[in-house]
Amino acid sequence: MRAAVMRDLKIVAADVAEPTPGPGEVLVKSLACGICGSDLHALKYAKQFVENSPGGMGMDISRDVVMGHEFCAEILDHGPMTTRQLKPGTRVCSFPMLWRNGGPVSVGYSNDVPGGYAERMLLMEAMLLPVPNGLSTERAALTEPMAVGLHAVEMARLGADDIPLVIGCGPIGLAVINALKTRDVRPIVAADYSPMRRTLAEQLGADIVLDPAKTSPYTSWREVAQVARAGEKLPLNPLTGTPELRPGVFFECVGVPGVIDQMMVGAERGCRFVVVGVCMEPDQIRPLLGITKELNLQFVLGYTPEEFARTLTLIADGKLIVDPLITGKVGVGGVADAFSALANPEAHAKIIVEPWR
Amino acid sequence: MRAAVMRDLKIVAADVAEPTPGPGEVLVKSLACGICGSDLHALKYAKQFVENSPGGMGMDISRDVVMGHEFCAEILDHGPMTTRQLKPGTRVCSFPMLWRNGGPVSVGYSNDVPGGYAERMLLMEAMLLPVPNGLSTERAALTEPMAVGLHAVEMARLGADDIPLVIGCGPIGLAVINALKTRDVRPIVAADYSPMRRTLAEQLGADIVLDPAKTSPYTSWREVAQVARAGEKLPLNPLTGTPELRPGVFFECVGVPGVIDQMMVGAERGCRFVVVGVCMEPDQIRPLLGITKELNLQFVLGYTPEEFARTLTLIADGKLIVDPLITGKVGVGGVADAFSALANPEAHAKIIVEPWR
Repeated sequence: MRAAVMRDLKIVAADVAEPTPGPGEVLVKSLACGICGSDLHALKYAKQFVENSPGGMGMDISRDVVMGHEFCAEILDHGPMTTRQLKPGTRVCSFPMLWRNGGPVSVGYSNDVPGGYAERMLLMEAMLLPVPNGLSTERAALTEPMAVGLHAVEMARLGADDIPLVIGCGPIGLAVINALKTRDVRPIVAADYSPMRRTLAEQLGADIVLDPAKTSPYTSWREVAQVARAGEKLPLNPLTGTPELRPGVFFECVGVPGVIDQMMVGAERGCRFVVVGVCMEPDQIRPLLGITKELNLQFVLGYTPEEFARTLTLIADGKLIVDPLITGKVGVGGVADAFSALANPEAHAKIIVEPWR
Repeated sequence: MRAAVMRDLKIVAADVAEPTPGPGEVLVKSLACGICGSDLHALKYAKQFVENSPGGMGMDISRDVVMGHEFCAEILDHGPMTTRQLKPGTRVCSFPMLWRNGGPVSVGYSNDVPGGYAERMLLMEAMLLPVPNGLSTERAALTEPMAVGLHAVEMARLGADDIPLVIGCGPIGLAVINALKTRDVRPIVAADYSPMRRTLAEQLGADIVLDPAKTSPYTSWREVAQVARAGEKLPLNPLTGTPELRPGVFFECVGVPGVIDQMMVGAERGCRFVVVGVCMEPDQIRPLLGITKELNLQFVLGYTPEEFARTLTLIADGKLIVDPLITGKVGVGGVADAFSALANPEAHAKIIVEPWR
């Protein structure tokens, strides 16, 4: 079968072996699979990516890897020891993981099973979530990246008074905005240098969207943080007796060195950070800034199976808006160029691979 | 009056002006005042200390500063607009802050009012806490550093299953151990290279105390974290189905570059860090470690007035053990040498200044 393969640290279209479902597994056709920033990272920083990934993501980059973990698929056939409750032809999403020989196998970051950039792939029957009636395939394929945003927002332990600030409006920042919009926290402040991403941030529900080249995100956040919710009063600082700002929850959705420190400079006392952007390189911070402001940094990764399933339901119910994110579609032969195109924030947000093309 | 003065980035014994209490203030005699690690920092890193301190700590290091904020004092006289409820001769502790011209003044880090290394000082009447009957002056003087440990433990949001690991058993680490001992979290694991500090850690209530040169603190922590509390079961990981470790709460009580990153390497998934040690220099971390383990870093500073008052009560009730911490006493003339002596962890934990000597 055809697949876009990571081979010798390049993406190439190639023929790869047909997968055969093992016990408890199903063979599926990859209908649509988003290209994730992590895949771009995996290609660019392959060594660090492998060294620092949690146990399940072990892969040997000297061998072929078919990436792709943001997929919607169609059941083709059932392997042994399956209940066959979902019939062939059913469209499904799944937490991108298999369970083999007592250990997890990451679908999309494995030498042993192909990801969604291949025509066909394997999933665990027990993890399949049927796509709710009427939800389009490409919307369903966005379950995975949207679940990352939902998880980040869950981990933020939001209170009703909190004011979120989203730094960086790439796909992850947009997923965070999307998830924030389902909660009673507002206004949502968001910042990105790219005009296209700022437009997307507005479409996905950010209330105040700014260009950091022109306006400080922290000044904008502070302006709204000093206004209490209607009918309420801001609490008083126990030492100074002056009104406190509303609590800040800053989402780091950039993932390059220097951003966390910059946010620590911009933050006010008691701000909480949720670090979703994946910075692959060592980074410098000034702990004294964190201490004098009593900042909290919550690093987050991925999502739980429950959050994944909830995200699919929220998309199907129209509570999460995903259409504006899809800016391109390619077949297997277009994946290499798509990886390059995604480096330009003005050109694309999410490109969907359709390996059956 | 005599005082140990920070002058030209040195500590010298000198005569300074007698303070006069303003409205709402009282004149007190400094009976005992501990030398704090922050004072050593303020001397060594004066520039960074001033630049990065929160608003209230503004001081001009080109002018004299009388430090000392861990004090127990005796009321001598009342200024104007005071209620005089506590009579002269009453021993008191106080949150080390005055309120003048609409802003806070840090007692011990100010050019305008002397700290506890002077014979006499000023306090706000409204902030005075009488020393409970029978509590010795030197124990009462340890309220301030113990409040720092209490606050760190409050900010840790401890659950009954958590297992604390204290990295560094200087005065701050020991205060954290002391505060942890008042809570139902155990065993308390603690690590320090210094034999004397390890002995103190045991005396203050740490259950497992180790030398990082011989045993990894993280391995020791992991050994106890994989054992459930009596009669209970460890929760299962939703993905792997295997038992999770009990949650780790790691207290950073060292404050030198590299420690946070080292702790991130040693931590398990979901560990929470409380950063109490004050690292004055920029520090390097690997965000990817935080992300793959979903770590949480809570930076903390100081304590609230309520925590300060509660700490004094806990010491008076014998719930916080402070006697082993006091390893020396000096007069005004001995402060400079005491600053040097405190650099050696084998020699001292807490040296008390008695300016009336």
